[in-house]
Amino acid sequence: MITSTSNQRIKEIVQLQKKNRARNTEGVFIVEGIRMVREIPEDKLKALYVTEEFYKKHKAELPGNVKPEFVTPTVFSYIADTKTPQGVLAIVWQNKYTLADILKKGTEKKEMLLVLDNLQDPGNLGTIFRTAEAAGVTGIILSKDSVDIYNPKVIRSTMGAIFRMPFVYVEKLTDTIEELKAHQIQVYAAHLEGKNAYDEECYLNGTAYLIGNEGNGLRQEVADCADTWIRIPMLGQAESLNAAVAASILMFEAARQRRK
Amino acid sequence: MITSTSNQRIKEIVQLQKKNRARNTEGVFIVEGIRMVREIPEDKLKALYVTEEFYKKHKAELPGNVKPEFVTPTVFSYIADTKTPQGVLAIVWQNKYTLADILKKGTEKKEMLLVLDNLQDPGNLGTIFRTAEAAGVTGIILSKDSVDIYNPKVIRSTMGAIFRMPFVYVEKLTDTIEELKAHQIQVYAAHLEGKNAYDEECYLNGTAYLIGNEGNGLRQEVADCADTWIRIPMLGQAESLNAAVAASILMFEAARQRRK
Repeated sequence: MITSTSNQRIKEIVQLQKKNRARNTEGVFIVEGIRMVREIPEDKLKALYVTEEFYKKHKAELPGNVKPEFVTPTVFSYIADTKTPQGVLAIVWQNKYTLADILKKGTEKKEMLLVLDNLQDPGNLGTIFRTAEAAGVTGIILSKDSVDIYNPKVIRSTMGAIFRMPFVYVEKLTDTIEELKAHQIQVYAAHLEGKNAYDEECYLNGTAYLIGNEGNGLRQEVADCADTWIRIPMLGQAESLNAAVAASILMFEAARQRRK
Repeated sequence: MITSTSNQRIKEIVQLQKKNRARNTEGVFIVEGIRMVREIPEDKLKALYVTEEFYKKHKAELPGNVKPEFVTPTVFSYIADTKTPQGVLAIVWQNKYTLADILKKGTEKKEMLLVLDNLQDPGNLGTIFRTAEAAGVTGIILSKDSVDIYNPKVIRSTMGAIFRMPFVYVEKLTDTIEELKAHQIQVYAAHLEGKNAYDEECYLNGTAYLIGNEGNGLRQEVADCADTWIRIPMLGQAESLNAAVAASILMFEAARQRRK
Protein backbone atom coordinates (compact mmCIF):
# COMPACT_ATOMS: atom_id res chain seq x y z
CA MET A 1 0.00 0.00 0.00
CA ILE A 2 1.37 3.40 -1.02
CA THR A 3 0.45 5.89 1.68
CA SER A 4 2.52 8.94 0.86
CA THR A 5 2.27 11.50 -1.93
CA SER A 6 6.03 11.88 -1.80
CA ASN A 7 6.53 8.27 -2.91
CA GLN A 8 8.70 8.23 -6.04
CA ARG A 9 6.20 6.23 -8.15
CA ILE A 10 3.42 8.63 -7.18
CA LYS A 11 5.53 11.60 -8.22
CA GLU A 12 6.17 9.91 -11.55
CA ILE A 13 2.45 9.31 -12.14
CA VAL A 14 1.71 12.98 -11.50
CA GLN A 15 4.33 13.87 -14.13
CA LEU A 16 2.68 11.45 -16.56
CA GLN A 17 -0.67 13.16 -15.99
CA LYS A 18 0.71 16.63 -16.51
CA LYS A 19 3.52 16.33 -19.01
CA ASN A 20 3.44 15.29 -22.62
CA ARG A 21 7.22 14.85 -22.49
CA ALA A 22 7.13 12.48 -19.51
CA ARG A 23 4.51 10.35 -21.28
CA ASN A 24 6.48 10.18 -24.51
CA THR A 25 9.81 9.47 -22.78
CA GLU A 26 8.28 6.44 -21.06
CA GLY A 27 6.03 5.57 -24.01
CA VAL A 28 2.94 5.33 -21.80
CA PHE A 29 -0.25 7.19 -20.93
CA ILE A 30 -2.81 7.13 -18.13
CA VAL A 31 -6.35 5.85 -18.18
CA GLU A 32 -8.88 6.41 -15.37
CA GLY A 33 -12.20 4.82 -14.46
CA ILE A 34 -13.37 1.24 -14.71
CA ARG A 35 -15.18 1.69 -18.01
CA MET A 36 -12.00 2.76 -19.79
CA VAL A 37 -9.76 0.35 -17.85
CA ARG A 38 -11.84 -2.59 -19.04
CA GLU A 39 -11.22 -1.65 -22.65
CA ILE A 40 -7.41 -1.69 -22.38
CA PRO A 41 -5.99 -4.41 -24.65
CA GLU A 42 -4.33 -7.06 -22.47
CA ASP A 43 -0.83 -6.60 -23.88
CA LYS A 44 -0.97 -2.82 -23.39
CA LEU A 45 -1.59 -2.70 -19.65
CA LYS A 46 1.57 -1.80 -17.74
CA ALA A 47 0.39 -1.03 -14.20
CA LEU A 48 -2.80 -0.67 -12.22
CA TYR A 49 -3.45 1.51 -9.14
CA VAL A 50 -6.55 1.12 -6.99
CA THR A 51 -7.97 2.15 -3.65
CA GLU A 52 -8.97 -0.65 -1.28
CA GLU A 53 -12.59 0.46 -1.39
CA PHE A 54 -12.66 0.28 -5.17
CA TYR A 55 -10.93 -3.10 -5.19
CA LYS A 56 -13.45 -4.63 -2.79
CA LYS A 57 -16.39 -3.57 -4.94
CA HIS A 58 -15.00 -4.11 -8.44
CA LYS A 59 -12.36 -6.82 -8.09
CA ALA A 60 -14.08 -9.05 -10.65
CA GLU A 61 -14.11 -6.35 -13.31
CA LEU A 62 -10.38 -5.65 -13.16
CA PRO A 63 -7.97 -7.02 -15.77
CA GLY A 64 -6.49 -10.30 -14.53
CA ASN A 65 -3.00 -10.07 -15.99
CA VAL A 66 -1.55 -7.25 -13.88
CA LYS A 67 -1.54 -7.22 -10.11
CA PRO A 68 -3.00 -3.96 -8.82
CA GLU A 69 -1.01 -1.69 -6.52
CA PHE A 70 -2.97 -0.28 -3.59
CA VAL A 71 -2.88 3.41 -2.69
CA THR A 72 -4.75 5.35 0.00
CA PRO A 73 -7.72 7.55 -1.00
CA THR A 74 -5.59 10.66 -0.35
CA VAL A 75 -2.83 9.42 -2.63
CA PHE A 76 -5.40 8.45 -5.23
CA SER A 77 -6.94 11.92 -5.26
CA TYR A 78 -3.43 13.27 -5.71
CA ILE A 79 -2.68 11.18 -8.82
CA ALA A 80 -6.16 11.36 -10.37
CA ASP A 81 -6.94 13.96 -13.03
CA THR A 82 -10.67 13.83 -12.32
CA LYS A 83 -12.30 15.69 -9.44
CA THR A 84 -14.29 12.75 -8.11
CA PRO A 85 -12.10 9.76 -8.97
CA GLN A 86 -13.53 6.23 -8.94
CA GLY A 87 -10.40 4.72 -7.44
CA VAL A 88 -8.87 2.96 -10.43
CA LEU A 89 -6.09 4.20 -12.72
CA ALA A 90 -3.94 2.36 -15.24
CA ILE A 91 -0.60 3.03 -16.90
CA VAL A 92 -0.91 1.90 -20.50
CA TRP A 93 1.70 1.42 -23.24
CA GLN A 94 1.29 3.84 -26.13
CA ASN A 95 0.44 2.44 -29.54
CA LYS A 96 2.86 3.31 -32.32
CA TYR A 97 1.43 3.55 -35.80
CA THR A 98 3.02 4.71 -39.03
CA LEU A 99 1.33 6.29 -42.01
CA ALA A 100 1.94 2.97 -43.80
CA ASP A 101 -0.03 1.12 -41.09
CA ILE A 102 -2.91 3.50 -41.56
CA LEU A 103 -2.89 3.25 -45.35
CA LYS A 104 -2.86 -0.53 -45.12
CA LYS A 105 -5.95 -0.53 -42.91
CA GLY A 106 -8.30 0.82 -45.55
CA THR A 107 -9.04 -2.14 -47.79
CA GLU A 108 -10.12 -1.99 -51.44
CA LYS A 109 -9.54 1.75 -51.59
CA LYS A 110 -12.20 2.29 -48.95
CA GLU A 111 -10.05 4.37 -46.65
CA MET A 112 -11.82 7.05 -44.65
CA LEU A 113 -9.24 9.32 -43.07
CA LEU A 114 -9.38 12.46 -40.97
CA VAL A 115 -6.52 14.93 -41.23
CA LEU A 116 -6.47 17.39 -38.34
CA ASP A 117 -4.59 20.65 -38.80
CA ASN A 118 -3.55 22.21 -35.50
CA LEU A 119 -6.58 21.02 -33.55
CA GLN A 120 -6.24 22.41 -30.02
CA ASP A 121 -9.21 21.51 -27.83
CA PRO A 122 -8.77 18.23 -25.89
CA GLY A 123 -12.52 17.59 -25.72
CA ASN A 124 -12.84 18.07 -29.47
CA LEU A 125 -10.01 15.65 -30.23
CA GLY A 126 -11.44 12.97 -27.94
CA THR A 127 -14.91 13.39 -29.39
CA ILE A 128 -13.49 13.13 -32.91
CA PHE A 129 -11.82 9.79 -32.04
CA ARG A 130 -15.01 8.48 -30.47
CA THR A 131 -17.18 9.53 -33.43
CA ALA A 132 -14.61 8.38 -35.99
CA GLU A 133 -14.71 4.81 -34.74
CA ALA A 134 -18.50 4.78 -34.99
CA ALA A 135 -18.43 6.24 -38.51
CA GLY A 136 -15.92 3.69 -39.85
CA VAL A 137 -12.90 5.99 -40.11
CA THR A 138 -9.77 3.93 -40.83
CA GLY A 139 -7.19 6.34 -39.42
CA ILE A 140 -6.51 9.83 -38.11
CA ILE A 141 -3.57 12.00 -39.13
CA LEU A 142 -2.60 14.98 -36.97
CA SER A 143 -0.23 17.89 -37.57
CA LYS A 144 2.52 17.76 -34.95
CA ASP A 145 1.27 21.04 -33.39
CA SER A 146 -2.14 19.54 -32.58
CA VAL A 147 -3.11 18.85 -28.95
CA ASP A 148 -1.51 15.72 -27.48
CA ILE A 149 -3.75 12.67 -27.86
CA TYR A 150 -2.49 11.38 -24.49
CA ASN A 151 -3.71 14.46 -22.59
CA PRO A 152 -6.02 13.01 -19.87
CA LYS A 153 -9.02 15.03 -21.08
CA VAL A 154 -8.59 13.70 -24.61
CA ILE A 155 -8.33 10.12 -23.35
CA ARG A 156 -11.55 10.48 -21.32
CA SER A 157 -13.52 11.90 -24.26
CA THR A 158 -12.43 9.10 -26.62
CA MET A 159 -14.52 6.67 -24.55
CA GLY A 160 -12.11 3.86 -25.45
CA ALA A 161 -11.63 4.63 -29.15
CA ILE A 162 -8.02 5.55 -28.29
CA PHE A 163 -7.29 1.81 -27.99
CA ARG A 164 -8.67 1.01 -31.42
CA MET A 165 -8.30 3.96 -33.80
CA PRO A 166 -4.93 4.14 -35.61
CA PHE A 167 -3.42 7.63 -35.64
CA VAL A 168 -0.17 9.32 -36.46
CA TYR A 169 1.34 12.76 -35.83
CA VAL A 170 3.22 14.02 -38.87
CA GLU A 171 5.95 16.61 -39.30
CA LYS A 172 4.63 18.24 -42.41
CA LEU A 173 0.94 17.88 -43.16
CA THR A 174 1.27 19.10 -46.75
CA ASP A 175 3.77 16.30 -47.58
CA THR A 176 1.49 13.72 -46.01
CA ILE A 177 -1.49 14.97 -47.99
CA GLU A 178 0.51 14.54 -51.19
CA GLU A 179 1.19 10.94 -50.12
CA LEU A 180 -2.52 10.35 -49.62
CA LYS A 181 -3.24 11.69 -53.07
CA ALA A 182 -0.57 9.38 -54.52
CA HIS A 183 -2.57 6.54 -52.96
CA GLN A 184 -5.66 7.61 -54.96
CA ILE A 185 -7.32 9.01 -51.86
CA GLN A 186 -9.57 11.97 -52.62
CA VAL A 187 -8.75 14.81 -50.25
CA TYR A 188 -11.57 17.16 -49.20
CA ALA A 189 -11.02 20.35 -47.24
CA ALA A 190 -13.90 21.40 -44.98
CA HIS A 191 -13.86 25.09 -45.84
CA LEU A 192 -16.27 28.00 -45.44
CA GLU A 193 -15.48 28.98 -49.03
CA GLY A 194 -16.07 25.50 -50.47
CA LYS A 195 -18.03 25.62 -53.73
CA ASN A 196 -19.99 22.39 -53.37
CA ALA A 197 -22.02 21.41 -50.34
CA TYR A 198 -20.51 18.38 -48.60
CA ASP A 199 -23.44 16.17 -49.57
CA GLU A 200 -22.92 16.83 -53.27
CA GLU A 201 -19.71 14.79 -53.37
CA CYS A 202 -19.25 11.01 -53.52
CA TYR A 203 -17.25 9.38 -50.73
CA LEU A 204 -17.48 5.74 -51.84
CA ASN A 205 -13.79 5.52 -52.69
CA GLY A 206 -10.76 6.40 -50.54
CA THR A 207 -11.61 9.67 -48.78
CA ALA A 208 -9.74 12.05 -46.50
CA TYR A 209 -11.25 15.08 -44.78
CA LEU A 210 -9.07 18.01 -43.74
CA ILE A 211 -10.34 19.64 -40.53
CA GLY A 212 -8.87 22.92 -39.27
CA ASN A 213 -8.12 24.62 -36.00
CA GLU A 214 -11.06 25.70 -33.81
CA GLY A 215 -10.51 29.42 -34.17
CA ASN A 216 -8.68 29.80 -37.46
CA GLY A 217 -9.77 26.92 -39.66
CA LEU A 218 -7.33 25.26 -42.05
CA ARG A 219 -3.98 26.89 -42.77
CA GLN A 220 -3.98 28.19 -46.32
CA GLU A 221 -1.13 25.94 -47.45
CA VAL A 222 -2.92 22.89 -46.08
CA ALA A 223 -6.28 23.82 -47.64
CA ASP A 224 -4.47 24.40 -50.94
CA CYS A 225 -3.36 20.74 -51.00
CA ALA A 226 -6.92 19.43 -51.11
CA ASP A 227 -8.46 18.07 -54.30
CA THR A 228 -11.79 19.69 -53.45
CA TRP A 229 -13.08 22.27 -50.99
CA ILE A 230 -16.47 21.42 -49.54
CA ARG A 231 -18.69 23.49 -47.27
CA ILE A 232 -21.35 22.58 -44.76
CA PRO A 233 -24.27 24.89 -45.60
CA MET A 234 -25.24 27.01 -42.59
CA LEU A 235 -28.41 28.95 -41.87
CA GLY A 236 -28.97 31.86 -39.49
CA GLN A 237 -26.06 33.99 -38.38
CA ALA A 238 -23.84 31.04 -37.48
CA GLU A 239 -20.31 31.77 -38.70
CA SER A 240 -18.86 28.32 -38.23
CA LEU A 241 -19.38 24.97 -36.56
CA ASN A 242 -17.47 23.37 -33.73
CA ALA A 243 -14.59 21.35 -35.25
CA ALA A 244 -15.79 18.03 -33.81
CA VAL A 245 -19.32 18.69 -35.05
CA ALA A 246 -18.12 19.59 -38.56
CA ALA A 247 -15.96 16.45 -38.66
CA SER A 248 -18.90 14.34 -37.44
CA ILE A 249 -21.26 15.63 -40.12
CA LEU A 250 -18.72 14.80 -42.84
CA MET A 251 -17.81 11.35 -41.50
CA PHE A 252 -21.44 10.35 -41.12
CA GLU A 253 -22.28 11.57 -44.62
CA ALA A 254 -19.56 9.22 -45.92
CA ALA A 255 -20.91 6.43 -43.70
CA ARG A 256 -24.43 7.08 -44.99
CA GLN A 257 -23.30 6.87 -48.62
CA ARG A 258 -21.27 3.73 -47.97
CA ARG A 259 -24.25 1.96 -46.33
CA LYS A 260 -26.41 2.34 -49.45
CA MET B 1 -13.73 53.16 -11.71
CA ILE B 2 -14.45 50.21 -9.41
CA THR B 3 -11.23 49.28 -7.64
CA SER B 4 -12.34 46.89 -4.91
CA THR B 5 -13.58 43.30 -5.05
CA SER B 6 -15.73 44.05 -2.01
CA ASN B 7 -17.78 46.58 -3.98
CA GLN B 8 -21.47 45.58 -3.81
CA ARG B 9 -21.98 45.48 -7.59
CA ILE B 10 -18.90 43.29 -7.99
CA LYS B 11 -20.21 40.87 -5.39
CA GLU B 12 -23.50 40.72 -7.25
CA ILE B 13 -21.78 39.94 -10.56
CA VAL B 14 -19.89 37.05 -8.95
CA GLN B 15 -23.23 35.67 -7.73
CA LEU B 16 -24.63 35.99 -11.26
CA GLN B 17 -21.66 34.00 -12.61
CA LYS B 18 -22.03 31.26 -10.06
CA LYS B 19 -25.70 30.96 -9.25
CA ASN B 20 -28.57 29.94 -11.43
CA ARG B 21 -30.95 31.37 -8.83
CA ALA B 22 -29.30 34.80 -8.78
CA ARG B 23 -29.52 34.97 -12.57
CA ASN B 24 -33.17 33.97 -12.65
CA THR B 25 -34.16 36.30 -9.80
CA GLU B 26 -32.74 39.26 -11.69
CA GLY B 27 -33.72 37.88 -15.11
CA VAL B 28 -30.23 38.41 -16.51
CA PHE B 29 -27.11 36.51 -17.53
CA ILE B 30 -23.47 37.31 -18.20
CA VAL B 31 -21.62 37.42 -21.48
CA GLU B 32 -17.84 37.73 -21.82
CA GLY B 33 -15.50 38.62 -24.66
CA ILE B 34 -15.89 41.14 -27.46
CA ARG B 35 -17.08 38.62 -30.03
CA MET B 36 -20.10 37.65 -27.92
CA VAL B 37 -20.69 41.20 -26.65
CA ARG B 38 -21.02 42.49 -30.21
CA GLU B 39 -23.82 40.02 -30.87
CA ILE B 40 -26.01 41.19 -27.97
CA PRO B 41 -29.28 42.63 -29.32
CA GLU B 42 -29.41 46.36 -28.47
CA ASP B 43 -32.51 46.17 -26.28
CA LYS B 44 -31.08 43.28 -24.24
CA LEU B 45 -27.91 44.93 -22.98
CA LYS B 46 -28.24 45.97 -19.34
CA ALA B 47 -24.70 46.86 -18.25
CA LEU B 48 -21.15 46.73 -19.53
CA TYR B 49 -17.92 46.33 -17.55
CA VAL B 50 -14.50 46.95 -19.06
CA THR B 51 -10.88 47.45 -18.11
CA GLU B 52 -9.25 50.69 -19.21
CA GLU B 53 -6.78 48.80 -21.36
CA PHE B 54 -9.57 46.98 -23.18
CA TYR B 55 -11.54 50.20 -23.65
CA LYS B 56 -8.61 52.03 -25.22
CA LYS B 57 -8.07 49.29 -27.78
CA HIS B 58 -11.64 48.31 -28.58
CA LYS B 59 -13.75 51.39 -27.88
CA ALA B 60 -15.13 51.48 -31.42
CA GLU B 61 -16.37 47.89 -31.25
CA LEU B 62 -18.41 48.36 -28.07
CA PRO B 63 -22.20 48.78 -28.16
CA GLY B 64 -23.06 52.50 -28.18
CA ASN B 65 -26.25 52.46 -26.15
CA VAL B 66 -24.88 51.60 -22.71
CA LYS B 67 -22.08 53.52 -21.00
CA PRO B 68 -19.38 51.11 -19.85
CA GLU B 69 -18.34 50.95 -16.21
CA PHE B 70 -14.58 50.78 -15.63
CA VAL B 71 -13.02 48.22 -13.29
CA THR B 72 -9.37 47.53 -12.48
CA PRO B 73 -7.68 44.43 -14.00
CA THR B 74 -7.72 42.77 -10.57
CA VAL B 75 -11.44 43.34 -10.17
CA PHE B 76 -12.01 42.14 -13.72
CA SER B 77 -10.17 38.87 -13.10
CA TYR B 78 -12.33 38.46 -10.01
CA ILE B 79 -15.64 38.77 -11.90
CA ALA B 80 -14.57 36.94 -15.07
CA ASP B 81 -15.38 33.25 -15.51
CA THR B 82 -12.55 32.75 -18.00
CA LYS B 83 -8.94 32.27 -16.97
CA THR B 84 -7.47 34.83 -19.35
CA PRO B 85 -10.25 37.42 -19.63
CA GLN B 86 -10.25 39.95 -22.46
CA GLY B 87 -11.48 42.77 -20.26
CA VAL B 88 -15.11 43.08 -21.37
CA LEU B 89 -18.19 41.63 -19.70
CA ALA B 90 -21.88 42.40 -20.17
CA ILE B 91 -25.00 41.87 -18.12
CA VAL B 92 -27.77 40.88 -20.52
CA TRP B 93 -31.53 40.56 -20.05
CA GLN B 94 -32.78 37.00 -20.42
CA ASN B 95 -35.13 36.19 -23.27
CA LYS B 96 -38.46 34.68 -22.28
CA TYR B 97 -40.06 32.33 -24.75
CA THR B 98 -43.12 30.15 -24.44
CA LEU B 99 -43.87 26.89 -26.22
CA ALA B 100 -46.43 28.87 -28.24
CA ASP B 101 -43.68 31.26 -29.44
CA ILE B 102 -41.61 28.30 -30.55
CA LEU B 103 -44.47 26.59 -32.34
CA LYS B 104 -45.31 29.82 -34.16
CA LYS B 105 -41.75 30.13 -35.43
CA GLY B 106 -41.87 27.08 -37.65
CA THR B 107 -43.86 28.16 -40.67
CA GLU B 108 -45.82 25.89 -43.05
CA LYS B 109 -45.31 22.87 -40.79
CA LYS B 110 -41.56 23.12 -41.31
CA GLU B 111 -40.67 23.14 -37.62
CA MET B 112 -37.40 21.51 -36.69
CA LEU B 113 -37.26 21.11 -32.92
CA LEU B 114 -34.81 19.58 -30.49
CA VAL B 115 -36.14 18.16 -27.25
CA LEU B 116 -33.41 17.64 -24.66
CA ASP B 117 -34.07 15.20 -21.83
CA ASN B 118 -31.88 15.89 -18.80
CA LEU B 119 -28.86 17.07 -20.78
CA GLN B 120 -26.11 17.81 -18.25
CA ASP B 121 -22.89 18.90 -19.92
CA PRO B 122 -22.59 22.69 -20.41
CA GLY B 123 -20.29 22.33 -23.42
CA ASN B 124 -22.73 19.94 -25.09
CA LEU B 125 -25.67 22.28 -24.57
CA GLY B 126 -23.80 25.27 -25.95
CA THR B 127 -22.58 23.28 -28.95
CA ILE B 128 -26.12 22.07 -29.60
CA PHE B 129 -27.39 25.68 -29.67
CA ARG B 130 -24.59 26.73 -32.00
CA THR B 131 -25.15 23.80 -34.37
CA ALA B 132 -28.94 24.10 -34.21
CA GLU B 133 -28.88 27.64 -35.54
CA ALA B 134 -26.70 26.55 -38.46
CA ALA B 135 -28.96 23.58 -39.24
CA GLY B 136 -32.16 25.63 -39.27
CA VAL B 137 -33.66 24.41 -36.00
CA THR B 138 -36.67 26.54 -35.06
CA GLY B 139 -36.63 25.97 -31.30
CA ILE B 140 -35.17 23.94 -28.44
CA ILE B 141 -37.20 22.40 -25.63
CA LEU B 142 -35.44 21.30 -22.43
CA SER B 143 -36.59 19.23 -19.47
CA LYS B 144 -36.42 21.38 -16.36
CA ASP B 145 -33.65 19.17 -14.92
CA SER B 146 -31.31 19.93 -17.83
CA VAL B 147 -28.22 22.08 -17.28
CA ASP B 148 -28.94 25.82 -17.02
CA ILE B 149 -28.61 27.55 -20.40
CA TYR B 150 -27.26 30.65 -18.63
CA ASN B 151 -24.29 28.78 -17.13
CA PRO B 152 -21.21 30.76 -18.34
CA LYS B 153 -19.72 27.71 -20.07
CA VAL B 154 -22.92 27.11 -22.01
CA ILE B 155 -23.09 30.76 -23.07
CA ARG B 156 -19.51 30.65 -24.37
CA SER B 157 -20.06 27.49 -26.40
CA THR B 158 -23.22 28.86 -28.05
CA MET B 159 -21.00 31.37 -29.91
CA GLY B 160 -23.91 33.84 -29.99
CA ALA B 161 -26.73 31.45 -30.88
CA ILE B 162 -28.11 32.07 -27.36
CA PHE B 163 -29.32 35.48 -28.59
CA ARG B 164 -31.20 34.03 -31.55
CA MET B 165 -32.41 30.50 -30.84
CA PRO B 166 -35.80 30.29 -29.08
CA PHE B 167 -35.86 27.82 -26.20
CA VAL B 168 -38.06 26.85 -23.29
CA TYR B 169 -37.65 24.73 -20.16
CA VAL B 170 -40.72 22.63 -19.49
CA GLU B 171 -42.07 20.99 -16.34
CA LYS B 172 -43.12 17.73 -17.87
CA LEU B 173 -41.47 16.69 -21.11
CA THR B 174 -44.00 13.95 -21.83
CA ASP B 175 -46.89 16.47 -21.78
CA THR B 176 -44.97 18.80 -24.09
CA ILE B 177 -44.24 15.99 -26.53
CA GLU B 178 -47.97 15.24 -26.68
CA GLU B 179 -48.54 18.91 -27.54
CA LEU B 180 -46.01 18.68 -30.36
CA LYS B 181 -47.77 15.63 -31.74
CA ALA B 182 -51.10 17.48 -31.58
CA HIS B 183 -49.43 20.09 -33.82
CA GLN B 184 -48.70 17.38 -36.43
CA ILE B 185 -45.02 17.39 -35.57
CA GLN B 186 -43.39 13.98 -36.07
CA VAL B 187 -41.43 13.08 -32.97
CA TYR B 188 -38.28 10.95 -33.38
CA ALA B 189 -36.35 9.47 -30.47
CA ALA B 190 -32.62 9.01 -31.06
CA HIS B 191 -32.33 5.56 -29.54
CA LEU B 192 -29.76 2.75 -29.67
CA GLU B 193 -32.65 0.33 -30.18
CA GLY B 194 -34.24 2.29 -33.03
CA LYS B 195 -35.41 0.03 -35.86
CA ASN B 196 -34.75 2.34 -38.78
CA ALA B 197 -31.50 4.17 -39.42
CA TYR B 198 -31.95 7.93 -39.08
CA ASP B 199 -31.40 8.49 -42.80
CA GLU B 200 -34.29 6.20 -43.74
CA GLU B 201 -36.90 8.65 -42.45
CA CYS B 202 -38.28 11.80 -44.10
CA TYR B 203 -37.88 15.08 -42.21
CA LEU B 204 -39.50 17.45 -44.71
CA ASN B 205 -42.50 18.15 -42.49
CA GLY B 206 -42.57 19.30 -38.86
CA THR B 207 -39.90 17.30 -37.04
CA ALA B 208 -38.77 17.01 -33.43
CA TYR B 209 -35.76 15.01 -32.23
CA LEU B 210 -35.60 13.69 -28.67
CA ILE B 211 -32.03 13.66 -27.35
CA GLY B 212 -31.17 11.99 -24.05
CA ASN B 213 -28.78 12.46 -21.17
CA GLU B 214 -25.05 11.92 -21.82
CA GLY B 215 -24.70 8.83 -19.66
CA ASN B 216 -28.15 7.31 -19.60
CA GLY B 217 -29.84 8.27 -22.85
CA LEU B 218 -33.55 9.05 -22.93
CA ARG B 219 -35.76 8.22 -19.97
CA GLN B 220 -38.04 5.34 -20.89
CA GLU B 221 -41.25 7.35 -20.43
CA VAL B 222 -39.88 10.08 -22.71
CA ALA B 223 -38.70 7.66 -25.40
CA ASP B 224 -42.13 5.98 -25.23
CA CYS B 225 -43.81 9.23 -26.31
CA ALA B 226 -42.00 9.32 -29.65
CA ASP B 227 -43.77 8.43 -32.89
CA THR B 228 -40.63 6.66 -34.14
CA TRP B 229 -37.33 5.45 -32.70
CA ILE B 230 -34.37 6.01 -34.97
CA ARG B 231 -30.78 4.89 -34.57
CA ILE B 232 -27.50 6.22 -35.85
CA PRO B 233 -25.70 3.14 -37.22
CA MET B 234 -22.33 2.69 -35.50
CA LEU B 235 -19.31 0.64 -36.54
CA GLY B 236 -16.45 -0.68 -34.40
CA GLN B 237 -16.91 -1.10 -30.69
CA ALA B 238 -18.40 2.35 -30.15
CA GLU B 239 -21.30 2.04 -27.72
CA SER B 240 -22.75 5.49 -28.19
CA LEU B 241 -22.07 8.96 -29.54
CA ASN B 242 -21.59 12.21 -27.69
CA ALA B 243 -25.04 13.84 -27.26
CA ALA B 244 -24.09 16.99 -29.20
CA VAL B 245 -22.62 14.88 -32.02
CA ALA B 246 -25.73 12.69 -32.24
CA ALA B 247 -27.97 15.77 -32.30
CA SER B 248 -25.77 17.36 -34.99
CA ILE B 249 -25.94 14.32 -37.26
CA LEU B 250 -29.75 14.28 -37.03
CA MET B 251 -30.23 18.03 -37.52
CA PHE B 252 -27.94 18.09 -40.53
CA GLU B 253 -29.68 15.10 -42.09
CA ALA B 254 -32.94 17.07 -41.86
CA ALA B 255 -31.19 20.14 -43.28
CA ARG B 256 -29.78 18.03 -46.12
CA GLN B 257 -33.21 16.66 -46.99
CA ARG B 258 -34.80 20.10 -46.81
CA ARG B 259 -32.22 21.60 -49.17
CA LYS B 260 -33.07 19.15 -51.95
